[in-house]
Amino acid sequence: MKDKQQNILIIGAGLCGSLLALRLGQRGYNVTVYEKRPDLRKVTISAGRSINLAFSNRGIKAMKLVGLEDQVKALCIPMNGRMIHDTKGHTFLSPYSGRAHEYINSISRGGLNALLLDEAEKHKNVTIHFNKKCKSVDFEKTTALFKDYDTKTDFVEDADVIIGTDGAGSALRKSYYLGKKFLFSFSQDYLTHGYKELSILPKGKDDFRIFKNALHIWPRGSFMLIALPNLDGSFTVTLFLSYDEGDYNFNNLNTDEKVLEFFKKEFPDALAQMPNLLDDFNNNPTSPLGTVKCSPWHYKGNTLLMGDAAHAIVPFYGQGMNASFEDVVEFDKVLDKHLNDWETIFKVYESSRKKDTDAIADLAIDNFYEMRDHVANSIFQEKRKLEMALEQAFPGDYASKYSLVTFNEDLGYRDAMLQGRAQDKAILNMLTDGTIPTPLDVTAKELKTLLKKVKTETRDILEEDKIAGLK
Amino acid sequence: MKDKQQNILIIGAGLCGSLLALRLGQRGYNVTVYEKRPDLRKVTISAGRSINLAFSNRGIKAMKLVGLEDQVKALCIPMNGRMIHDTKGHTFLSPYSGRAHEYINSISRGGLNALLLDEAEKHKNVTIHFNKKCKSVDFEKTTALFKDYDTKTDFVEDADVIIGTDGAGSALRKSYYLGKKFLFSFSQDYLTHGYKELSILPKGKDDFRIFKNALHIWPRGSFMLIALPNLDGSFTVTLFLSYDEGDYNFNNLNTDEKVLEFFKKEFPDALAQMPNLLDDFNNNPTSPLGTVKCSPWHYKGNTLLMGDAAHAIVPFYGQGMNASFEDVVEFDKVLDKHLNDWETIFKVYESSRKKDTDAIADLAIDNFYEMRDHVANSIFQEKRKLEMALEQAFPGDYASKYSLVTFNEDLGYRDAMLQGRAQDKAILNMLTDGTIPTPLDVTAKELKTLLKKVKTETRDILEEDKIAGLK
Repeated sequence: MKDKQQNILIIGAGLCGSLLALRLGQRGYNVTVYEKRPDLRKVTISAGRSINLAFSNRGIKAMKLVGLEDQVKALCIPMNGRMIHDTKGHTFLSPYSGRAHEYINSISRGGLNALLLDEAEKHKNVTIHFNKKCKSVDFEKTTALFKDYDTKTDFVEDADVIIGTDGAGSALRKSYYLGKKFLFSFSQDYLTHGYKELSILPKGKDDFRIFKNALHIWPRGSFMLIALPNLDGSFTVTLFLSYDEGDYNFNNLNTDEKVLEFFKKEFPDALAQMPNLLDDFNNNPTSPLGTVKCSPWHYKGNTLLMGDAAHAIVPFYGQGMNASFEDVVEFDKVLDKHLNDWETIFKVYESSRKKDTDAIADLAIDNFYEMRDHVANSIFQEKRKLEMALEQAFPGDYASKYSLVTFNEDLGYRDAMLQGRAQDKAILNMLTDGTIPTPLDVTAKELKTLLKKVKTETRDILEEDKIAGLK
Repeated sequence: MKDKQQNILIIGAGLCGSLLALRLGQRGYNVTVYEKRPDLRKVTISAGRSINLAFSNRGIKAMKLVGLEDQVKALCIPMNGRMIHDTKGHTFLSPYSGRAHEYINSISRGGLNALLLDEAEKHKNVTIHFNKKCKSVDFEKTTALFKDYDTKTDFVEDADVIIGTDGAGSALRKSYYLGKKFLFSFSQDYLTHGYKELSILPKGKDDFRIFKNALHIWPRGSFMLIALPNLDGSFTVTLFLSYDEGDYNFNNLNTDEKVLEFFKKEFPDALAQMPNLLDDFNNNPTSPLGTVKCSPWHYKGNTLLMGDAAHAIVPFYGQGMNASFEDVVEFDKVLDKHLNDWETIFKVYESSRKKDTDAIADLAIDNFYEMRDHVANSIFQEKRKLEMALEQAFPGDYASKYSLVTFNEDLGYRDAMLQGRAQDKAILNMLTDGTIPTPLDVTAKELKTLLKKVKTETRDILEEDKIAGLK
């Protein structure tokens, strides 16, 4: 690798961009970041972006890399499981893991982003500019065109390397697509559902109206409501609903009466905690749910896409931010190899990383169906019961798909997906054919036998898939 | 449905557009077609588009619909199987089916297109204009902007309905994408391989240099050469090769010496029949291999995408044209339902059709690996041997994946894919675990037992997949 004192231009100072700036700053590069929004430490965060996010092991691993683990913990609210609410208001807690130390967290997007910006700016080789929107990138010349929202003028910046961490609507990715200078594979896939953010306000200061340490779900088959806690005692509530299908949808929920009728019928216990529902519903935007994949992520050694700019995913596995943070960890590992040039670095990074971001994109879609529907399904509940029993009894010897994805940060998403899907298939088939008794009522010895059977069946499924793939 | 005498504007008079014009003309609609190319009946077809195509049952079904089955047969050369060539020039024929009446055909793109244009123009309610390129579509106003290549002027046409059959680079689809008026899911996926057309010229008039009635394949693992016969005794040869990977690729085959060295090493028997290789190689373009999927195909009741414009696929299943022709058959079925308005017609059409065009896109990618690699693989050859034996012995009771896709025109692509993949998996696993003896040397009675086992195993696989999908 050439002289380390190179100029790296980062487009976007969101979660991925600010972490990347911090890490490259720590490594000694000259880093300049341009962000189109105002500095979120000085103004209130704009509506329409999720206020809190699920934060788990892969994200924490990235915080360890930059030495911020303890500071980030202070921003977290642990969520130990899913609290499922039925239409009568009955609830039950479905833990995320049979191991007590494994849980996910609710974290404030703004708080975390501000911390990363503060830390990045402590490095004098890192500069962050706000209110500068990237309009396009000339990836052959390694220059980017910006509009300065303060002075209303355009300007061009050049650099040795440009990295686009400018999110799902990435200007760099758009330049790849519109440039037609190379074969650019690209997909944008929208679900037929959109989402709208609502809220449950605190009773008093820091006084949570519903159970604090859970991710609440009101699964209703083709739609659902979820809620994640915030440090101030409020919950950010999100309605996932079809735009135009079903009895109730975003298009036909067009009067206050209809909205109230819908919530009264489907989410009566949530409605009781949401006197502000109509204000939220009428003032907050309805936003689409999209998946973006593309390839290549880089153009020669000049430019690279990272985070949502390279792989935007739907939110249902709580892995969007974690995956983007993991990008930085994986990129850092490639930098450690001390390769000869940026093109090789980018190639090695993409070829090891893309299979994993493709996998989490697909897993996130799977979990949409799991959360809105399967969690309320009896065979699925029996599967979770067995998996919790296995994780509790054999903590070092079994991990569910959810655990593999969420709590096993040293296993790639793709391997977690293949192993997890095979396990799910094994258990569901064993439940269906009676190998696993329902309800699950077994001795410790019988449970050990079941573990063996699940493992054998899983191995067989993976082996047969491999043969069928002629790999 | 309103007055049948509506004005339907079709963009593109390729294979799909001209068949659609003919069928809608037969149904009594006022049809106007605009095609950007010159009339191919008056000029020679431009280079770079495949000269011949695989034509099979789904395409033939469409010809029956419009009453052209016999006329089309005269353009066909039957191909009964794959003729596999190894690097020593040894060959063997792998039949497409165990039923003698099942084969595919090589057909001239130009000849077939000309026939469809001729037949469409026989209807006085059908008008076809050439040299008129569609630049964009205003799908809200149902108008299209064209450039007239003859007069060099732009003009706007309006219609009651606009249907885009303008191929993989569709202007209508581009207008959907760039318009951002609705959520448009879209993907373009390129293989790392491109293709280049070459030729084997006839010895004398109508005198084929290699076996006429086969699709010739020279499978070489990561690349391959294929050849399809033409009525004049020539073969159109296509090289599928990586752009930049492997010892030989399109980027490094940049001298005559290197091209000859490559063919001498890998395709000596083909080279012997190709004294014109270097001319072809240097004069013909290298083209990319892409898959396009999108949704929705229609905007309200105003506009609709059909054929490659809606779903471009790679050529490896020989189903591109067949799938586009099947679009017209399926669309015609929906018209037979006499629904109330175009929006309903388009919705019903897309919701029944898209799952099948998605499936053939995926199957075509699968077949890329099968053709270039697996056909030369011993376990795959054993599978084909068993399937041929089953199809011969039990013609009404067994059909391979290839047969389901190619010769079972009343089964949708998606069902063919699910059934076919499960069968493949069953057989490959039974070969691996020794349930099926290799080499296959069984009595009629033993073969019947194997058929039963394959069917049971296939059913189990489908059932287990269904349970795992919680469907």
